[in-house]
Amino acid sequence: MSKDFLGIKDLDKNAIMTIIELAKQKKQEIFNNSFRKKILKDKTLVTLFYENSTRTKISFSVAGQYTGMNVSDLDVATSSVQKGESLIDTAVTLDQMGINYIILRHQQTGAPHLISKYVKASVINAGDGSNEHPTQALLDFFTIYEKKSSFKGLNVTIIGDINNSRVARSNVIGLKKLGANVTFSGPTTLLSKGMEVLGAKVSYDLKDAIRNADVIMGLRVQLERQSGMFPSLREYANIYGISSDLFTLAQKEAILMHPAPVNRGVELTSELVDSSASVINDQVTNGVAVRMAILELLQFGGF
Amino acid sequence: MSKDFLGIKDLDKNAIMTIIELAKQKKQEIFNNSFRKKILKDKTLVTLFYENSTRTKISFSVAGQYTGMNVSDLDVATSSVQKGESLIDTAVTLDQMGINYIILRHQQTGAPHLISKYVKASVINAGDGSNEHPTQALLDFFTIYEKKSSFKGLNVTIIGDINNSRVARSNVIGLKKLGANVTFSGPTTLLSKGMEVLGAKVSYDLKDAIRNADVIMGLRVQLERQSGMFPSLREYANIYGISSDLFTLAQKEAILMHPAPVNRGVELTSELVDSSASVINDQVTNGVAVRMAILELLQFGGF
Amino acid sequence: MSKDFLGIKDLDKNAIMTIIELAKQKKQEIFNNSFRKKILKDKTLVTLFYENSTRTKISFSVAGQYTGMNVSDLDVATSSVQKGESLIDTAVTLDQMGINYIILRHQQTGAPHLISKYVKASVINAGDGSNEHPTQALLDFFTIYEKKSSFKGLNVTIIGDINNSRVARSNVIGLKKLGANVTFSGPTTLLSKGMEVLGAKVSYDLKDAIRNADVIMGLRVQLERQSGMFPSLREYANIYGISSDLFTLAQKEAILMHPAPVNRGVELTSELVDSSASVINDQVTNGVAVRMAILELLQFGGF
Repeated sequence: MSKDFLGIKDLDKNAIMTIIELAKQKKQEIFNNSFRKKILKDKTLVTLFYENSTRTKISFSVAGQYTGMNVSDLDVATSSVQKGESLIDTAVTLDQMGINYIILRHQQTGAPHLISKYVKASVINAGDGSNEHPTQALLDFFTIYEKKSSFKGLNVTIIGDINNSRVARSNVIGLKKLGANVTFSGPTTLLSKGMEVLGAKVSYDLKDAIRNADVIMGLRVQLERQSGMFPSLREYANIYGISSDLFTLAQKEAILMHPAPVNRGVELTSELVDSSASVINDQVTNGVAVRMAILELLQFGGF
Repeated sequence: MSKDFLGIKDLDKNAIMTIIELAKQKKQEIFNNSFRKKILKDKTLVTLFYENSTRTKISFSVAGQYTGMNVSDLDVATSSVQKGESLIDTAVTLDQMGINYIILRHQQTGAPHLISKYVKASVINAGDGSNEHPTQALLDFFTIYEKKSSFKGLNVTIIGDINNSRVARSNVIGLKKLGANVTFSGPTTLLSKGMEVLGAKVSYDLKDAIRNADVIMGLRVQLERQSGMFPSLREYANIYGISSDLFTLAQKEAILMHPAPVNRGVELTSELVDSSASVINDQVTNGVAVRMAILELLQFGGF
Repeated sequence: MSKDFLGIKDLDKNAIMTIIELAKQKKQEIFNNSFRKKILKDKTLVTLFYENSTRTKISFSVAGQYTGMNVSDLDVATSSVQKGESLIDTAVTLDQMGINYIILRHQQTGAPHLISKYVKASVINAGDGSNEHPTQALLDFFTIYEKKSSFKGLNVTIIGDINNSRVARSNVIGLKKLGANVTFSGPTTLLSKGMEVLGAKVSYDLKDAIRNADVIMGLRVQLERQSGMFPSLREYANIYGISSDLFTLAQKEAILMHPAPVNRGVELTSELVDSSASVINDQVTNGVAVRMAILELLQFGGF
């Protein structure tokens, strides 16, 4: 049992299912504020994001508010923290102020693991380098479970910039534990053969990767991280963009996922994003629910 | 009845008076925190400002807090939202998180109307392009009503950059409905003859425009939006700046308004801003009161 | 008695001890949220920082939350406030919105004193120019008192960029009132002989300044404020950096303080920062406690 939530790697199947079951309950509280139990009333959560992510940050903020907490944002981007102060010193400072939850996003792999050793606060990994993004993966698992009722034998295909994707990494680690089959697909520049080591099948043939999939997950093309690895967005869209036509190759009741925000017309056609197969909006709601569940579980003994 | 608050255009005289009457009550709660009813307790408000406006944003934040809400700021300026993600996708994301109020400021006319169709949340227009700024107009109406007790036959003169002013536009639309006479004045480069179509008289003679006015409203010179339309601030101040001397041409009990912040010495002399005729500080308080009233009314059936 | 908290200069020994005694109680509430009395429930605090200071700002925010307040940040750095609007107009605006506490950091000496005359809100000086930083000094006094039980005859040595340090200034003013002896040390470029006027002994011999000290306080080297006043950080570290070896010259139970964040390896060696003599982490907690105490005392009659 840990005070922190650092990676899917640390969770077994039971722990994941515990979070999903609690998230199911928490979801009822999202749209009905009079149902909110505020189990963490008067506790304090601080978001500490060294990389921008409006969506993930506000999802944690809102989850904190819905569970009754005081929420603050340590605005690293515009602050003097970025220049020079050590991450450990910043985290210890928050800890010394009585903060209960530090939600950390950092460009360095292992940053949350590092600070977790120095603070009494619960540290939640909101994305570390190209390592893990475990709350994103959990909202994906919750969404899949909600739609498919089981992970056993499910075919999940993840498409895009796999090499740099902490979402893909956290997903494959968890989905394997849950009994699903994972296929990675993407251009060779963004998907090394070596990614098989994570337990996924690697396929450079997009049609083949989509065929028979129960779940198709597009990843966001991170324009800012690319450097000539593919000629243009248009070229990416032409070769690896998923259209409604391509999607028909998948299983009949297949669902479409994406961590969002979608670059419409690049990873996915706009038509497909708005189709009935798309569960992208559900993922947003489930993200809040999963984060509420994790915040509460950490308070009551961790995982 | 609408779940949203998008423009003065949508309100009839009764709706405006309903807001003013409730704002009068809400005003009592502003300086007396033990009076606050917190009717919107546990609901959630997010400010989503694509243009900077510290005053309007904090006015909404404070109004949200005073009515008991969780308030968050989706920090668009420093976030990745600005680049690329569609406004609709951002709004739908907030909606999927269970946000109850989205306060939108956007450089595009019609942006709040657009997103209002995609979300269950109440959308409040905090300024769209050069179209409307309806909560500003309502605080102006409340302030006028507070000081003058009636709109009937009142002469209101609005001076400055009328062409680009959503404040002027929302004001004239509402003031006509309420029975006041509106005159626009300003340099020809900032005030087209065609603005008469909104129902105001256009006068390029500042003295004439001030003469007999019961209410004089200066508009902020938006330096960042001008491009050589008048030679310099000093020239503007010389020709269209309002001094205490000029102000004496108005009706005896005339009041001075301005949406603030004032460029002291440009639109208005500092002396006039600080004179007893000035109700600029009242406008600030009334802005919070009006926003509290609107937030509450939207919860209970809209307008 | 004042509604504001502007400087150590305004406080007598009794007032300082009253704050310290209340801070001692408040400290119990920091790590035990169920103990929090929320004496300022529903009041509203706004931080108005014209200079960046993530630590001080979040310390005030958290202190505000722990006492039950609504907390907002008027984000001056990224707002239009910075350009042109007068500080007084901004403060009056907040006042007109019913804000109870304005926490001001400003690059101009006397800025908080100026606005305090225009607003009903309590103004707290969170650092003005190179004048005072009174809440920092109070957390220092609380920390010293906690560790040493008395100020009488205590030798306090403050080392670094004294000329530009509002921390040094607020500290010496208060420590003299409390009966301690203060020595300033630092390079001649950063410490003028004239600083003796504040009541401290000035010593350019670091070893001599450390010898017999009960309290050693390093100041942060403000890189952004220097302009060729010393050749390099490395040179500063060589000549005025404090190492564990140097520290042994001090009294046996001497404590090490720093307003943080420390430039590790510049003002202090990393080893010394993490040593048992260091009370830097206590200072962080005590900062929240002292701010809670000040916020509460201002509500109940001031000082």
